[in-house]
Amino acid sequence: MEYIESVHNDQIKTAIKLQTKKYQTKTNAYFLEGPHLIQEAVAAGVDLKQLFITENHQDDHLVKRFYDQTIMISDAVANHLAATETNQGMFAIAPIPALQLPAALTGGWLLLDAVQDPGNVGTMIRTADAAGFAGVIIGTGTAWPFNPKVVRAMQGSQFHLQLAQATMTDAVAQLHSAAAPVYGTLVNDAAVDYRTIQPVPTFGLIIGNEGNGMDPALAKQTTANLVIPIPGHAESLNAAIAAGILMFHLVA
Amino acid sequence: MEYIESVHNDQIKTAIKLQTKKYQTKTNAYFLEGPHLIQEAVAAGVDLKQLFITENHQDDHLVKRFYDQTIMISDAVANHLAATETNQGMFAIAPIPALQLPAALTGGWLLLDAVQDPGNVGTMIRTADAAGFAGVIIGTGTAWPFNPKVVRAMQGSQFHLQLAQATMTDAVAQLHSAAAPVYGTLVNDAAVDYRTIQPVPTFGLIIGNEGNGMDPALAKQTTANLVIPIPGHAESLNAAIAAGILMFHLVA
Repeated sequence: MEYIESVHNDQIKTAIKLQTKKYQTKTNAYFLEGPHLIQEAVAAGVDLKQLFITENHQDDHLVKRFYDQTIMISDAVANHLAATETNQGMFAIAPIPALQLPAALTGGWLLLDAVQDPGNVGTMIRTADAAGFAGVIIGTGTAWPFNPKVVRAMQGSQFHLQLAQATMTDAVAQLHSAAAPVYGTLVNDAAVDYRTIQPVPTFGLIIGNEGNGMDPALAKQTTANLVIPIPGHAESLNAAIAAGILMFHLVA
Repeated sequence: MEYIESVHNDQIKTAIKLQTKKYQTKTNAYFLEGPHLIQEAVAAGVDLKQLFITENHQDDHLVKRFYDQTIMISDAVANHLAATETNQGMFAIAPIPALQLPAALTGGWLLLDAVQDPGNVGTMIRTADAAGFAGVIIGTGTAWPFNPKVVRAMQGSQFHLQLAQATMTDAVAQLHSAAAPVYGTLVNDAAVDYRTIQPVPTFGLIIGNEGNGMDPALAKQTTANLVIPIPGHAESLNAAIAAGILMFHLVA
């Protein structure tokens, strides 16, 4: 098994470069940190491209399974690779999954229309996963789902549900062709209280940009436009909180 | 009106120091950024200790009202004071409100038991404000509510509801003495589906630490322990998302 103790090693430099979308899309891979996330990936059938371990992990069952892809690293290199202060001694390079929109959509689908904040995007994907959604559609202007901040906030949900990249128009059309309702979240006079909506098995829910909300042109294509009545004094809810309340209502 | 064009000016250094809890508690003041937040503060009756404006704001009605407290600053100083990349040319030093627990508690109260992440704490306070809660009780180990990251996430909610510092035990006892139910969020066998709870006017909701959850000793003092059933595959919800779903159910 190869052993790396220099942070200047080319393979370590490559792993660090996998923080950027540019290098991720070029190599079709991204970086995972920590045994828990890596075990979730493997449990979901992900074929690791590379596994980096510190010495204390050498008897791990993942090492046996991915022996040819495993590289042992020094603690100094592990600290260099770790985004967190206490490194957990295990890192991996995993393939980015295909992000095609499935031909037939069933179940709940979260549509992200220019949601910019990586933390929000990751939290929404994690919440969609918890709510039992089938997938999340990443629209134009939405944070790239393999941005390290998104990956941290997703907490492994990318291994449980389907991620797809598509324009909102295409995604909405596909849901309509499946006779599924599509709920928007533009605050206007025609918006209806979300609590009046009865859950159905297949549907779409569009969440818009944090500052500007959902694209008004898109609202014309929705079945209904949902609003969360605010009894208090705050002007609005954080986008991820609003998405959470709506998702858990729609699957209830 | 005084004009400051050096970032080394003592009053600018003081403003910068107001990012830290140590200096905030020493001077009983914190820092506000942007006209929107400052207007909200003033609308809520906050007496600004200092107002910093760039030249283009000199005709603002706030300047007339706080003329003796106003200092004009150069764009360079404004950029130095701004946490965001595009400064909005208006900053203020505001007093930290009294954080005593009121003698009689009515309405909804959010109790934060060692919630560590400042973004989570700020978002929960903003959500409590939106849900029409009366106040938020900051327990031991919870992020200091005037940490700049909390202030950013609160988006002015500190001007709409009451913030108090107290031990969870004291806060729970006070709610019980008002014959109000107190809901915990410890995941255990005795936990009940939150959707079975009927809203009441006065109640407490305890949210625990992001990693460890609520203190189990505290769960013995609660009326009921609520759980959000997770139909999907994620192991848990983000603490702020869970808090949002529960708060909006409890005031519905």
